[in-house]
Parts: sequence; structure tokens; C-alpha cells
Amino acid sequence: MKNYGEITGIRYEGKDSREPFAFKYYNPEEVIAGKTMKEHLKFSMSYWHTIDAEGVDMFGGPSMDKKFGKIDPMEMYRAKADFAFELMDKLGIEYYCFHDADVAPEGRTVRESLENFEVMVDYICGLQKRHNKKLLWATANNFGDKKFMAGAATSCSADVFAVAAAKVKSCIDATIKLGGMGYVFWGGREGYETLLNTDVALELDNMARFLTMARDYGRKNGFTGDFYIEPKPKEPTKHQYDFDAATCLNFLRKYNLTGDFKMNIEANHATLAGHTFQHELRMAAVNDAFGSIDANQGDMLLGWDTDQFPTNVYDTTLCMLEVFKAGGFTNGGLNFDAKTRRPSNTLEDILLAYIAGMDSFALGLRTALKIIEDGRIDAFVDNRYRSYREGIGKKIVEGTTAFEELSDYAMNLTDVSVESGRQEYLETVFNNILFG
Amino acid sequence: MKNYGEITGIRYEGKDSREPFAFKYYNPEEVIAGKTMKEHLKFSMSYWHTIDAEGVDMFGGPSMDKKFGKIDPMEMYRAKADFAFELMDKLGIEYYCFHDADVAPEGRTVRESLENFEVMVDYICGLQKRHNKKLLWATANNFGDKKFMAGAATSCSADVFAVAAAKVKSCIDATIKLGGMGYVFWGGREGYETLLNTDVALELDNMARFLTMARDYGRKNGFTGDFYIEPKPKEPTKHQYDFDAATCLNFLRKYNLTGDFKMNIEANHATLAGHTFQHELRMAAVNDAFGSIDANQGDMLLGWDTDQFPTNVYDTTLCMLEVFKAGGFTNGGLNFDAKTRRPSNTLEDILLAYIAGMDSFALGLRTALKIIEDGRIDAFVDNRYRSYREGIGKKIVEGTTAFEELSDYAMNLTDVSVESGRQEYLETVFNNILFG
Amino acid sequence: MKNYGEITGIRYEGKDSREPFAFKYYNPEEVIAGKTMKEHLKFSMSYWHTIDAEGVDMFGGPSMDKKFGKIDPMEMYRAKADFAFELMDKLGIEYYCFHDADVAPEGRTVRESLENFEVMVDYICGLQKRHNKKLLWATANNFGDKKFMAGAATSCSADVFAVAAAKVKSCIDATIKLGGMGYVFWGGREGYETLLNTDVALELDNMARFLTMARDYGRKNGFTGDFYIEPKPKEPTKHQYDFDAATCLNFLRKYNLTGDFKMNIEANHATLAGHTFQHELRMAAVNDAFGSIDANQGDMLLGWDTDQFPTNVYDTTLCMLEVFKAGGFTNGGLNFDAKTRRPSNTLEDILLAYIAGMDSFALGLRTALKIIEDGRIDAFVDNRYRSYREGIGKKIVEGTTAFEELSDYAMNLTDVSVESGRQEYLETVFNNILFG
Amino acid sequence: MKNYGEITGIRYEGKDSREPFAFKYYNPEEVIAGKTMKEHLKFSMSYWHTIDAEGVDMFGGPSMDKKFGKIDPMEMYRAKADFAFELMDKLGIEYYCFHDADVAPEGRTVRESLENFEVMVDYICGLQKRHNKKLLWATANNFGDKKFMAGAATSCSADVFAVAAAKVKSCIDATIKLGGMGYVFWGGREGYETLLNTDVALELDNMARFLTMARDYGRKNGFTGDFYIEPKPKEPTKHQYDFDAATCLNFLRKYNLTGDFKMNIEANHATLAGHTFQHELRMAAVNDAFGSIDANQGDMLLGWDTDQFPTNVYDTTLCMLEVFKAGGFTNGGLNFDAKTRRPSNTLEDILLAYIAGMDSFALGLRTALKIIEDGRIDAFVDNRYRSYREGIGKKIVEGTTAFEELSDYAMNLTDVSVESGRQEYLETVFNNILFG
Repeated sequence: MKNYGEITGIRYEGKDSREPFAFKYYNPEEVIAGKTMKEHLKFSMSYWHTIDAEGVDMFGGPSMDKKFGKIDPMEMYRAKADFAFELMDKLGIEYYCFHDADVAPEGRTVRESLENFEVMVDYICGLQKRHNKKLLWATANNFGDKKFMAGAATSCSADVFAVAAAKVKSCIDATIKLGGMGYVFWGGREGYETLLNTDVALELDNMARFLTMARDYGRKNGFTGDFYIEPKPKEPTKHQYDFDAATCLNFLRKYNLTGDFKMNIEANHATLAGHTFQHELRMAAVNDAFGSIDANQGDMLLGWDTDQFPTNVYDTTLCMLEVFKAGGFTNGGLNFDAKTRRPSNTLEDILLAYIAGMDSFALGLRTALKIIEDGRIDAFVDNRYRSYREGIGKKIVEGTTAFEELSDYAMNLTDVSVESGRQEYLETVFNNILFG
Repeated sequence: MKNYGEITGIRYEGKDSREPFAFKYYNPEEVIAGKTMKEHLKFSMSYWHTIDAEGVDMFGGPSMDKKFGKIDPMEMYRAKADFAFELMDKLGIEYYCFHDADVAPEGRTVRESLENFEVMVDYICGLQKRHNKKLLWATANNFGDKKFMAGAATSCSADVFAVAAAKVKSCIDATIKLGGMGYVFWGGREGYETLLNTDVALELDNMARFLTMARDYGRKNGFTGDFYIEPKPKEPTKHQYDFDAATCLNFLRKYNLTGDFKMNIEANHATLAGHTFQHELRMAAVNDAFGSIDANQGDMLLGWDTDQFPTNVYDTTLCMLEVFKAGGFTNGGLNFDAKTRRPSNTLEDILLAYIAGMDSFALGLRTALKIIEDGRIDAFVDNRYRSYREGIGKKIVEGTTAFEELSDYAMNLTDVSVESGRQEYLETVFNNILFG
Repeated sequence: MKNYGEITGIRYEGKDSREPFAFKYYNPEEVIAGKTMKEHLKFSMSYWHTIDAEGVDMFGGPSMDKKFGKIDPMEMYRAKADFAFELMDKLGIEYYCFHDADVAPEGRTVRESLENFEVMVDYICGLQKRHNKKLLWATANNFGDKKFMAGAATSCSADVFAVAAAKVKSCIDATIKLGGMGYVFWGGREGYETLLNTDVALELDNMARFLTMARDYGRKNGFTGDFYIEPKPKEPTKHQYDFDAATCLNFLRKYNLTGDFKMNIEANHATLAGHTFQHELRMAAVNDAFGSIDANQGDMLLGWDTDQFPTNVYDTTLCMLEVFKAGGFTNGGLNFDAKTRRPSNTLEDILLAYIAGMDSFALGLRTALKIIEDGRIDAFVDNRYRSYREGIGKKIVEGTTAFEELSDYAMNLTDVSVESGRQEYLETVFNNILFG
Repeated sequence: MKNYGEITGIRYEGKDSREPFAFKYYNPEEVIAGKTMKEHLKFSMSYWHTIDAEGVDMFGGPSMDKKFGKIDPMEMYRAKADFAFELMDKLGIEYYCFHDADVAPEGRTVRESLENFEVMVDYICGLQKRHNKKLLWATANNFGDKKFMAGAATSCSADVFAVAAAKVKSCIDATIKLGGMGYVFWGGREGYETLLNTDVALELDNMARFLTMARDYGRKNGFTGDFYIEPKPKEPTKHQYDFDAATCLNFLRKYNLTGDFKMNIEANHATLAGHTFQHELRMAAVNDAFGSIDANQGDMLLGWDTDQFPTNVYDTTLCMLEVFKAGGFTNGGLNFDAKTRRPSNTLEDILLAYIAGMDSFALGLRTALKIIEDGRIDAFVDNRYRSYREGIGKKIVEGTTAFEELSDYAMNLTDVSVESGRQEYLETVFNNILFG
């Protein structure tokens, strides 16, 4: 196997290639369904996992070193940024995402941290232009530091709320400066450890106040992109308020925040909430809140966020089907919120893992399109609900009937039956298309 | 141990009693916090588990016989009703709940089923008066029969939708006739087995159409009580639309159904959705939708609805704390949606199980009141959020600040820290009050 | 789509066929790796799901009718048997499996039930010869009837133990008569609902006594096949003693039953125990207990045994890889312990579901062989452990070193590091082979 | 509330005390059932959580500082040790447990690390004598460092195996020097991330070789205490070989390691494996492997090891019942493998959390004894199995019958039934004793 340094660019070699550092399914400039593959997929690199995280877990220290031989903090973060944009070049990835804390060193004070961040944003702005990359979205890490241990917008301390606001303000400024079209809220500590010490009503009201102020600040300063809420049910806190898409949507409706806020759906968060990835995407879409995607996969037998690179092509196909049904991405994209397994601790593994994820989504894209072209599944669904396009069904849908009429109608039915749902047949059709 | 027949009435004998057929903590007429225990608790018998279910599970046949020696269907259901009201008398339970299918035999046609139901409702009306009992709520079983295999209000067949409407209409009529103050929707088949064959958007719209018509019909005909949605995440279907309280509330908000519809929270459904019982009650309350309770408990290591009689006093205490904080029951109550374990297959076990549940909730009620009187936990919470009652916190709550001001404020903070959440201390206080 | 009656035999048409009632990947007589596909796979029909179960679940009645127009019990069971063998013919399935209760009606007494069973075994014996089919394994249903509510071999009643023994004896006799090479024990009620009423030590001893007597009886009467334990963690009981393969193996070792008893691994039981299907197969194999397979799949987000027809080709491939590594089937085979989803309620769905499962396993077989031929994954593993083939590693494996020497050796190591596990790369290789 | 420094010793003040820093149920010198409470309970402090861990989790940095103002590593670890023994004094805890890595700083080489460890063991030896404390057990941290990323005894690298051996040798030496009566193996990385890169058979054989050498080394050097395996199903690895008690026991039996090795059962590991704490204790006991306990509790709705201080008195009572039934502790004890919640970040919280745990176990001890004295539950169980003490049941237990006789016997039974299991009644009795 080649070394990281020897690899200049990952190229598409097609499905028969045995070269580890080549794409077998992802052909960025290939046009399918009217757009290039890279336009359909809008792949993004996650700064935190890829550029910062060193393989630490709850039971072990780092398995990688990502200090790039630097000791001075600002120098180290510049080296990280240089590495990041070179990596994106090697992979042919156009977008990236970050938390403020990913790109700049923590200062001794809030002020110093924000200053470090501003300096690094300018540095990244330069890299972005030189490498022709785009910011998919930014976000503030308002969960890592000790001061956020009881929440940020939902902290019991108003001072912490204020610091969180300062950080989000600064990140929104950065998003605008970098031309990002998304801004994400992930409330890692916005929730509770125990209801015994928690005033849920106040905390939810405060969270709404925070998001309202963020929205107002962003709009006032020219941010025209989407705000995203990223649902996750638990971890690190026992319960997080943004449990799943439906919970977030109830919150947004209650506090009149729909429209400005959409969903950033993560596969592994979906399954931790007891849903399929596909389900959460569908829930977002039917509530007019389909936004962006954190592409990864969990281990269905593990109860925490494993953030694995997505390699299950069933899931990537079902995901891309939902993306197509939702009309494709507008401001959003596919961000790999994924990390190599702790024992995959080389730079080569980072490339191999991105290739794994990108090829899996490329296959998912190709298969989703084949399913749509094939038409059998869509036709089945369409036919299944035909009774709502005529007679009593039409009246139901049009709202021109009532229980009295429905009851009379039902009384006169001699036999009421439903057709088979044909799940096994549909799964077979799916497999036949997937495996060709 | 005495036989069922020998037991005329279960009496309160206090905590030192060793008599199996006596209450140790539930003293119905004892006044605490201004009301009798029975007024606080509003216990209800579930007709389906208690009067109909015979211990069948997915791997085994009946372990009990509840046919009362009858062969003729109508005679059998009258015998069941007689037994039901005698049982409530023995237990001193004032309320009951039923599905249409619990109280009357299925006919060969929809019409005949509804006629059987009407006859039995009249019969029960008589029993209710003689035994001085009240209907807590009624509901339609729109999930058991083959015709509902793909849903009722969300069926792909408009005819099935109509039959479901006829049944709900008939149950609302019965509720009004019996003076019930609640009507429950539990959508056992309102969901999907696979998204491959499902038009989620249409199904959700249809569910809203159905509930809107039900509400309109009820209000027009004089029903002034509450409609309840009963959240449950999965089982029998792979996914049910009414996943948890937040999901239901998003639905109600989307379709303008709040106000008329409140939540019927079931302990075992809460935990199957990944929440505590207490969490779901709190979610209902902070969304102005606290309604009624299905009191039972699940096995936290099992992935299906075990519907056990509640015996965990931690849970009953935390439940009653939420009930007090929500202002107590209005139209709702505590319905034992619980069944004896399959090998607890005697009539005596039914009494013992209800005693277990009623005593556990009586202890929960007593302990919850002690916690409120003790005041330590409430005072801790109150003090924890004090920063929102002055200075910048007050401005946040009153909506008189913005990100610019918050950022400036934050920049000038020298040290930002949060007090300990003291979870272990609060759990100790809880234990000290619970165990005296 | 054709009707059930019109379909005479499912034929292999290859992957481009769009005919629902044809195999796309399963070509029974095609020889790969030295055997025909049907010899590799040894597909078996499960009598209970396919011939008896009518779609009942915990919340609903039947969605299918499998009474074949008969009222007289013995006539009905003969009609069922006729249907079963015709169905196997249509599908080209050679093996079948049953519980005693699946093939004959329950009598009023134990004696009558056993007599019914004997009559039906003779009838089936005739069908088996005429249709050229083989019994993969038989088993006794010692969990369905009320008398088994507290277990069979682990019942608190010695009489129930005796009845269970009589039934197993009768089933072993039938297995011998029908030439079956396997006999399965699945202990649906061999476990507990609560430890409060359970003498675990006595129950485990009794279970061992029961299995020992069964083994002795079988061997004495000429049964030379394998006895199988089928692990399952929970459901219907709260805890089942045969939790997973490792638990069963500890039991077999403790009571000196290894050798005669092997594992019957079920995919859905594996995942309910928190394991992958592949893991359980590997555990059986490394403990010399690889036996037979119950082929199905669960829903990873549901906590009960969904017994779905296997359609996930990742799982079928990983399963077949384990089968190959274990040397292929000896007495065992692939039994579809699977049922159509409740809304898939037609005879056509049964065929479609079997086709789904058979084609998925055929693809799994083909892919597993490709992975072995490809060699990259096996070579990677082989190379990864090379340090145990020389030097200190060799001494460890050969047992010629001790802690003192190892410690001295370790002290002199200057740098100790491990190579990357390359999980993402290996998953990519897997995908590349799977998707071609 | 008092400050940490002001608290000299936690005293028993009885259940009516409202003093946070006092025991309400734990009265160390009180004699019940022939022993003092402290002899029954044998409480132990866990060095890692209490003295080292600073509140870091996967999404956040430290919330506490445990560097005690020191910069020099050896000085810091001496300060930690001083703090540890003072803390044990304050709490009146007699035992402690540690990993090598908890008590001494990591060196630049294996040799230097072991030397640091030896120095610190001598230092602790002095403290132990002065403070009159005992080592419950020691263990080696063979999972934290990068070199163990693919396992220790099951690493693919023989060098890593050797380093692991050196570390265990050194820890066994320390255990002997400190007079510890237990030595624990917890195989945090002894398992796999993916079967695609794993030779399970070799790894299990190597694990057995490792344990055999450890046992031989210990016995040769005079260690007469117990070796313990600590089961845990997953985390940090995807699958750990020591999944649960039954899995460990199968392993020990296979490799002839029973007798020397017993179980160290952890409550939170039990539930992560799908078992109750009580179940795992019972499994250990019925397999003659009851050893020691890691006392904590998990959150049943979370899928990772939360290591909470135990406050659920149902669980502590059921645990102590099992301890009594197993004959009490011999070499083992109750080690609090528990940490304060991240937001409980003060030294006072550490005291409050230990008080919470110790009082909960004291209540559990008292209640367990009351249950035994009460006798109703034991009598119920005893009576339930009476059929095995006479007639056919006696023959079954004595091994003097066979299937032929059992079958004949069963044929002549006219009615076979089992008595009710009375679970709800037994739960009520349990509650009545628990709540007095």
C-alpha cells in the first residue's frame, strides 16, 4: 500500500480496480440525472473528526497524533488547516464543516478565544480561496468546556448563556465571512442529567429565546442560508431536548421558528433515537424541514454514537432515495461526521475511510436513481392508495365528508378488505436493482 | 390464602398487615393535601386485560378462562360485565376504561358489531348506575381485525377509513351516553411496517382528517371531555406515528388540534420510546397537554410492552410528583393498563395484582407529598436558576436583550462557572424521604 | 402477478429477470466450489410459520386462513401436510422442520395428542417419500400449552417434566422414523419470569437431567444425528436459560453434554442477545458446536423476535462465510424460521418471501465464495497475526514461556506498536466484491 | 453545606438526620446477623474514578481538577495517594482497589513505568499501614495505551502480549506485597471491532494462555487469594470476549481455569449485557464462581457504562439477598466502581456520592435480612418445588428414571396443571418489607 505522502489525488478507476486509493463508484464529473455526481452528493469533510480527534475514547488515550510537530498553538492550528485543505484536495471534496473550537486554540479568556478564532477564520478564508473550497456549515462548540457542563442556552447560569451567545455570534460572523450557507445547532448539553434538579419549562423557553436571537442576529447581518437543528436523543447528557426530528419540530412550531430552521439529520443519531435514518429524513421532509445530512453509520448493537464511516449500501441507497424525493440538496450537503475506528490509526486510514464513505454514497446515488427509473416500487405505492382518488376516499382527502356520512357508508359495505402490503416482494425488487 | 369468592371487599389494614387481600398503604377515604386518596388517584380498571385477556402470548395459548361458562356470545359478554363491576366493587375502584371490542362480541358485519356494542353499552349503563361507577374513557379497537392490518385512519383503503370512522363515532356516542369525560386514540396500526410501500405524507394528512372529524363530531354532540392521544413508539407495527409525546404534539400543532387533544401517557410506552415515565409526563405538562395516565410498568431489559402491574415505588412517586406539578387530574385518572404475568393465572392473582398497583401508587402519592412538604428538592431547583431573576438573566427572560449585548457582557466576565448539580445528594434526599 | 395456483414451479431465470415468481440468484443444480447450490444451502421449510401461523400478533387476530376449508381436525392437518409438500415442490425445497404440535391436532389428553401425532407422522412419512423430501430436524412444542407456563424440563411441577419427557420421546421416535438427522431443543419457557419465585440451581440441574435422558434415549434407539440447542435470550419468558451460544456451551460443559449437542443458531435470536449473527456462528464453531441455522432476520430497532425472511445480503454473505469456515453443513441446514409480515397475507406472499430468502442466501453463497477466492481479506488476517509464528510469539503459542521470561523480554523492547486494523479498507473490499 | 475541609469524619446519625454529611442507614459497628455492618459490606474505594478521573467524557473536557497543585508526576501521585487515604478515613472505608496506571505516572518506557509503579506501591504500602486499610484487589490497565488498541492478551502482536504479561506480573507482585486477596482481569480491549480482521480462535487460545501463566505465576509466588474475571459485553470494543458471567464460565471451563478464577460482577455491566445485576450474581453462584462485586448502577435507558453511584434500593436489596445466599463475601467485597456525574464536580460531591452508595447498600443489607427473617418469600419458593421431593420428582432428581418410565407415567395423568407463580403477590411482599 502507498504512503499518505505518495498519494496525490484519488481518482475514479471503476468497479474492477483493486487499487485501495481509487474510487470504484464515485466519478465526480459524471453526469447522471442532469447533474454531476459531485453536485448531487455535495460531500463535506468534518474538521473535528478528521483534523483534530486523535482516537481518544472513554477507556483509552490517543492512537494518532495530529499536532503536526507543532508546539505553539496558533502554529499548530495553521498546520492543521493546511493539512485539512490538502486532504480535501487529495479526496476531491469541495465542502467542509467546523466548530469554532476545531479551528483555533482555546484562549485563557472568552475574549482571547474569540480573537484566536477570528485570526484563524481569516487564515482559512485564504485557504478556501486558494483551494477552491466552500464552507457547508459552521457551528459553535458549546458543550465541551466545563462551563457548559449544565448546558449552554439551557444552563442554569445566565452568564453561561451569555458566553454561549457570544460564541454563536462569532460563529455566525465567521459563516457570513466564509460564505457558508448553513449554520448548525447541536445541543450536546442542552438537556438534563436528572429531572430532580431541572426546570424543564424555563430551559426550553430559554433555548427558544437563544435561537430566536441567533436567527435575528443572522438575518440582520445578511445570513441568507439555513439554520439547522441536529437531533440527537442522548449522549453526552442523559436526555437531550433535540431528541429526534419530530421533537425538534414540535419545539420549532411552539416557538414560531419554522422556516428559518431546518433539520441536519445524522444517521447514527437517528438509530440511537430508535428510528431508521430513512425515517428521520422522511419526517424532516414531510414537515418541510429537510436540510442537510451528517453521513455516518452506527453499530446497531451498540448504544452510543460510534460515528463510523458509512459503508452499508442499503442505508446509503435509502438515504439518497429520500434526498431525491425531497428535491435534492439546496443549502445542505453530505457531511462525513465520521471517524476512523481507533485501531485504524494512520493517515492512510483517513483516506481509505473517506473513500469507503464516498464510494458507498456514490453507489447509493446510482442505485437510488435506478430504483426511480425502474419504477416498480413507486408504481406499487401509487397504486396502493388509489382509493383516495375517487368516491368516498376523494371526499375524505378533500374534506367534504364527516363521521355521519362515513358511518352510513361503512354500514353498507359487505366486505372490507385490504390488499397485501407485499413487503417481501418489494425487498426482493430492491435487492435485484441493488445487486443488478 | 382465601379464594376469590370468599373475598368481599379489600380493606385498608395499614402497613403492618400481613393479609394478602388488604391494602397496606391505600386508604381510600383518608384525606391528604385537601382531598381523599381516591380523589387524588382516580384508579381505573382496564377492561381488556382484566375482563377479556386470557394469558395468550406469541408463543402460547391461554392460561386462564374468562368465558364464565357461557357459550352464547351476548350472554358471555353480559357475564363478563357482571364480573367486571363486582370486581371493581371488591377493589373499591370507581372508574373503568374499555375498547368497543372488549365489551361486546364481534358481529358478522360492521352493522351487527355496532348493534351488539350498543346493546352492551346499555347493559353497562345499568351496571354503572347500580354499582356507582364512572367511565374514565372509551376507545375503539381499530387495530385487531384483519381489515386494519394496514392501519385504520392511515389505511391505504378508504373503505377501512370509513369503517374506522363508524366505529369511533359509535364509541363517542357510547362515551356521551355513559358520561365519560375522556376519549382515547391509540393508533396500534397507524404507522408502517416498511417505508418501501408507504406514503407517509398522505397517511399523516389522513390521520389529521380523521381526528378533526372525530373532534367535530364529539363537540357537536355534546362531548365536553378531553380527547387523548396515547403515544407508543412501536409494536405492533414497526413504527407508529404517535411515537412519543413530543411527536404527537408536533402532529397536533401542525394540524391545529391542540386544546381538544391531550396526552394519555403510559409508563411502559414511555420507556419503549427511550424516555422515563416522568419525562413523558413532564413533556405533556410543559406543552399544556397533561391528560390521563395508563399506569403500568415495563421490564427495562425487554423490548416489548410487558404491561406489568406497577410495583416500583420510585416510579410511582416520580409519577405522582409530576401529577401534582401539573395540578392533579382534571378529566383524567390512573388507568391500570396492566395484566397479571401469564403464570399468575387465577382470579386471586387479579386481585393481588390490583392491590400491588394500588398500594404502590398510594405509597407514591404519600411520598410525593412528603417531598413537596420537605421542600429541599424544590428549594434546590429554585435556587439553581436564580441568575435568571436579576441582571442579564432577567433581560434574557424578559426578551429585552440581543446577541450584541450578550456578547459584550460575556467579553467582560473574568470567570464563568456553574455550581454543582448535586445529583447524588438529591438522590439521597429522595431516598431518605422515601424510606423514612 | 400470477395466482398461487398458476405457479407450478419456481425456476432460475437469472439476475435480469423481472418475473416475481422466479429465482434471480438461486440456481439449485449449478455447481460451485465442488457442490451444487442446493447441497451447499440445504434449504428447509419451517412448518409452524408456513403451514400453521395465520398472522395473529399480540394486538390482532388472523390475517390469513390456513384451515384449507376443513373442520375435522385430522382432516385439516392432512390438508395442511398436503399443502406443505406441494409448496416445497413449487419452491424446490428439499428439507422441512416441525414441532409435534405443528403437524397434528392437540387431543383432549396427553395420550390422545401423542396418538394424533403418530398418525400424522405416518401420513407425513408417506408424503416425504412421494415428494422426495427429508426431515432436517424435529422438535417438541413444550412451551405453548398452559401446563408449560412455568417451564417444561424446568417446571416446578414434576408431572409437567414427565409430560415434557413423553412428548420429546415421541418426537425422537418420529425423527428416527422419518430419518431426520437433527433434533432441536428450544426452551421457550425454560427460564424465569422473576427470580423471586425461582430456584435456578434446581431448574438448571433438572434441565441437564432432561437433556441427558433425551440423549440416552435417542442413542439407545438408534438416533445418530445431532441434538441441537437453540439459543434465545428472552421472549416469551423474561429470561431464558439458553441465552446465547456461550451460555449454552457453559451449560453443556458443566453437565458433560458436549459432543452430542451442537448449536442451532438463529439470526434474530443472535441480535436479541446483543450479538451479530456472524458472532454466534463463530462462537459455535470455535467451541466445536457448529450445527444448524435458523435463517431469518430481525429488525435491529425492535426488541422482539420479528422472524423476517432474510433479505439483507450483507448478513447472508457473512453467514455463508462462517458456514464455509466451519466446513459446511454436516447434519444441519438452513431452515427458514421466518414468516411473512402480517399484511403480506396471501399464498403468493409465501412464495415471494421464500424466493426473497432463497435468493438472498444464494447471493450470500456466491459472494462468500468470491471473497474466499479473492483472498485479500483472509491474507490480511493471516498476516496480521504473523508475530505468533516466530520468536516470542511462537513460544507463547507453544506454551514454552512464562511471565518471568515475557517480562524480561518486554523490558528490553524499545518501541511497541501495533499495525492499523484497517477496518474501513476491509469493509471497502467487502463492498467491492459484493457489488462487483 | 460544609466544605470538604471541614468534614473530619462521616458519622451515623440515623434515618431522621437531615445532615448531608452523615450516614442515615450505615452504622459500621452495628452487629446484625452475627457480623458488623462493615464486615458484611466490605466497602472499597475505586482509585480510578475517585482519585484520578476529572470528569472528561467523549464530548467534553475536565470538570474537576485532581492534580492537587502538583506538576512533578511522582509528587502528584504521592499527593493523590495521600488524598485517597484521607478520603477513606473520612468515609470510614477500609478497602481500596486500583489499576497500576491509577497510582503511578506512565514512564517513557515499559521499564520506567514499572519502576514508577514499584516506587508508588511502596509508598502506598506505608499509607496502608498508617491508615489501617486493606487492598481489596489490584489490576493492570492493559487497555488505555495506544499499544493495547488491538487487545493485550488477545493482541495481534506478540510484543504487546509480552508487555501485558510484564504489567500483570508487576501487579501480582504488588498485590502480594500489599496483602491483597484479589486480582482482577477486565479485558477492555480483549475482543474485536470487526470480525473481518480477527482470528477469534487464536485470540481466545492466547487469552487462556495468558490467564494460565498469570495463575501459575501468582500461585508460585504465594498468592492465595482469588483471581477474578470481570464480565462486560461491549465498550470500549464492539464485542468483548468476557461478555457476561456465563460466557466467562464457558471460557474458564474450556481452558480448565475454574477454581482459581471467580467472577467480579458489576451492576452496570450486567444490564449492558441484557441481564439484571441479580441474575449475574446468581449465575456466578450456581457455577461456584461468586467472587466480588463492582457496586454501581447504570441508566437503563442509556447504552453505555454510566458507572453511577448506586442509589436504587430495590437493586441493593436484591444484590445483598444474593450475597447472603452465596454465603457472604470471602475474599471479595463491594467496590464502588462509580463516579460522580460530570456536573457534580466538587470534593463535597465525592463524599455525598459515597454516602449515597453506602447508605443505599446499608439499607439493602438491612432489608435483605428482613426478607430472610420474614421467610414468606423463601417459604413460597420452597413449597413451589415440593413435587421434586417425592414420587416421580424424587426419581428425576436422584437420576433413577428414564424417558420410557416418564412417558408411561405421563400417559396416565388425567390432569396436569401448575400452580400460579404469584409474581405480583411476591412483589407486594417485597415492597411491604422494604417500605415497612
